[in-house]
This record gives sequence, structure tokens and C-alpha cells, in this order.
Amino acid sequence: MYGDGVDTREQLIESARELLWERGYVGTSPKAIQQRAGAGQGSMYHHFRGKPDLALAAIRRSADEMRARAEAEFAGTGTALDRITAYLGRERAALRGCPVGRLTQDPDVMADPELRAPVEETFTRVTEQLAALVAEGSANGELDPRLDPVATATALVAVLQGGYVLARAAGSADVYARAVDGALGLLAPHVRKEG
Amino acid sequence: MYGDGVDTREQLIESARELLWERGYVGTSPKAIQQRAGAGQGSMYHHFRGKPDLALAAIRRSADEMRARAEAEFAGTGTALDRITAYLGRERAALRGCPVGRLTQDPDVMADPELRAPVEETFTRVTEQLAALVAEGSANGELDPRLDPVATATALVAVLQGGYVLARAAGSADVYARAVDGALGLLAPHVRKEG
Repeated sequence: MYGDGVDTREQLIESARELLWERGYVGTSPKAIQQRAGAGQGSMYHHFRGKPDLALAAIRRSADEMRARAEAEFAGTGTALDRITAYLGRERAALRGCPVGRLTQDPDVMADPELRAPVEETFTRVTEQLAALVAEGSANGELDPRLDPVATATALVAVLQGGYVLARAAGSADVYARAVDGALGLLAPHVRKEG
Repeated sequence: MYGDGVDTREQLIESARELLWERGYVGTSPKAIQQRAGAGQGSMYHHFRGKPDLALAAIRRSADEMRARAEAEFAGTGTALDRITAYLGRERAALRGCPVGRLTQDPDVMADPELRAPVEETFTRVTEQLAALVAEGSANGELDPRLDPVATATALVAVLQGGYVLARAAGSADVYARAVDGALGLLAPHVRKEG
């Protein structure tokens, strides 16, 4: 069994992430995580102090992934507007919802400062970076400079998070795509055509 | 104890609504509802077949309220744009989140067609009516007719739902207000100034 520790720890984190995404914190029992990970109770308590400790590792990883993906898009090639559009238009698993955003509906996650911190930091960071991109677009003449960067970025991130809510309510990913189309339509007249 | 039946039924529904809003379906036990309602187990099962039956009454009532409030705003006085702005700008308990939208994160609600129906119908109806208002504004020259009514309405409803998510993540209602400001800023150049 030597060398198995890392794999088990890893499987516990990945199983916790999936269950938090599917069922939320309150709906996820330690037993369910152990079963999905194929790990025993002793093994879970060897690697983690308990459910909050394991959930923290899982939430941090989901938050880090979300942030890293957005950062890669924001830092990509193309104009500021290209990168904003790529971020908004990226294909997402709309019906599964956002693994980080859904945690805001988990009262036990929101009530625990340690569990909430990665959720808060991720949305703050993504919104700040998108605002910087809007400001960049305004500064270089791609976007109307009257557009408030922070408010605009907040609205755009909200469209995506709300798009998940509406898609799940309708049972249709099309509704998510429609929300993004609507946001791009609202943005259109702010774009300054060159040449 | 005569005449107490209606009150108890009513208290059970209201308690279930509050708990579904605060803790979601999976986090709400029949016992917790009974305790909050000050009702016994026998009394709950006299009025309802069980938790799903009581939850359905609670969800229907929250959905009906949300729809009725939006309909009143959409049918209010003022131009189409006034009414769109009033709907977006209405003060909401941002940190509590949307009592209907939050149910989309409840796997047991989403998996039960009967429980999901009021959630789906409410968002469909509110989006349709907002789209009709955008179309009205386009038709009477208040709004740029190039604005796609359905996509725009979907994006605007999504901003509100996502605004709740971001406000809860940040622990600040200001973020919700900022998302609405951003949406109004995005809408601004689509407004056709008269005279």
C-alpha cells in the first residue's frame, strides 16, 4: 500500500469537488465522499481533519481552476474586446452550473469565513481583471470611454452566473447562450469601429 | 382548537418558504419546518402528504409572488424604458438571494418535475414579459430596434440572478447594485433620445 497516500488524498478531493458541485455542502456527507472516492473512513481522517477540511481543499481547487482559466483568457492574444468576447463566449457546462457560484447558495459555506474566502476571492479577482480589460479597451479606443469598467465587468460576470441559474431553471443550455448573446448585443454600440 | 387548521397550514407553508430560502430543500428537514411553525408532526401530516407536498405549496407561493411583483412593475405607468428601469432598479434583499433562483441549485428540486415546474414557469414568464417590454420600447422609438428583445431580456434577468450570486460571494449588497448599474450603463446607448 506504499505510495497510495497521494492517490487516495487526490481521489477524496476530486470526489468532494464533484459532490459539492452536484449536491452542495449541506447535501454531501463524508460517507458519500468516501464511497465515491473508494476510500475508507479511516483513510479520509488520515488525510483530512473532517468534512470542512476536505471541503476547503476541494473549494480551493475549484476556485483556483476557475480563476486560472479566466486569467488565461484575459491574458490571451487579440484586442481587449477579443478577449472579453472570448471570456463571455467560452463554452461552459451550463446545466451543471458554476462549481464556485453554486457555493454561494450553501448556507454552511457562506457562514464559515475559511470556506467562503476562496469563493469571494475568485469573483473579486475575475471581476477586477475583466474591469481592467474594459479599461484597456476604453483607453485604446476600442470601447466607449463612458463605459464604467467596474460596473460593466460586474454586470458581465453576473450575466454568466445568472445564465447558469436560468439554464438550470429551464433545463436548457440554450438559455445560457441566449443570455450571453444578449450581453454581447448590449455591448455592441459601445464598440468603436475602426477605419 | 376549532379554526386553527388554516393558521397551522399557513404557518407550515411560510416556515417551509423561509427554510427553503435560507437552507434549500436538501438542508430543510420536516422536523425543522414543524419547529419553526410551532406545529407537531401529526399536524404537518394532516395538512400535507409529506415534505415534497409541503415544499410544492411553498415553492408555488414564492414563485407566484415573484411573478406577480414583476408583472405589476411591467404593467405600471411610464414609458417602456421607465418600467424596464424600475424592474431592474427595484430594491431587493441582495444578500438573502432570490428565493426562486436559489432553488435551481437544489438537486432534489431540479430532479422532481413537479417541484421544478413553478421555478421554470416563473423565469420563462418574467423573461417573456420583459422581452415584450423591450419590443414595445423598440416599436415606439424609445429603444434601438436592433436590440434583440428575447436575448436582451434574458441577459437582464440573468444580471439580477447573477447579481445575487456575486453579492453573496462578496458578503456585500453593493455588488448587486453595481451589477444593475453596469446593466443600465450597457443599455444606455440603445436609448433613443427624443427632442
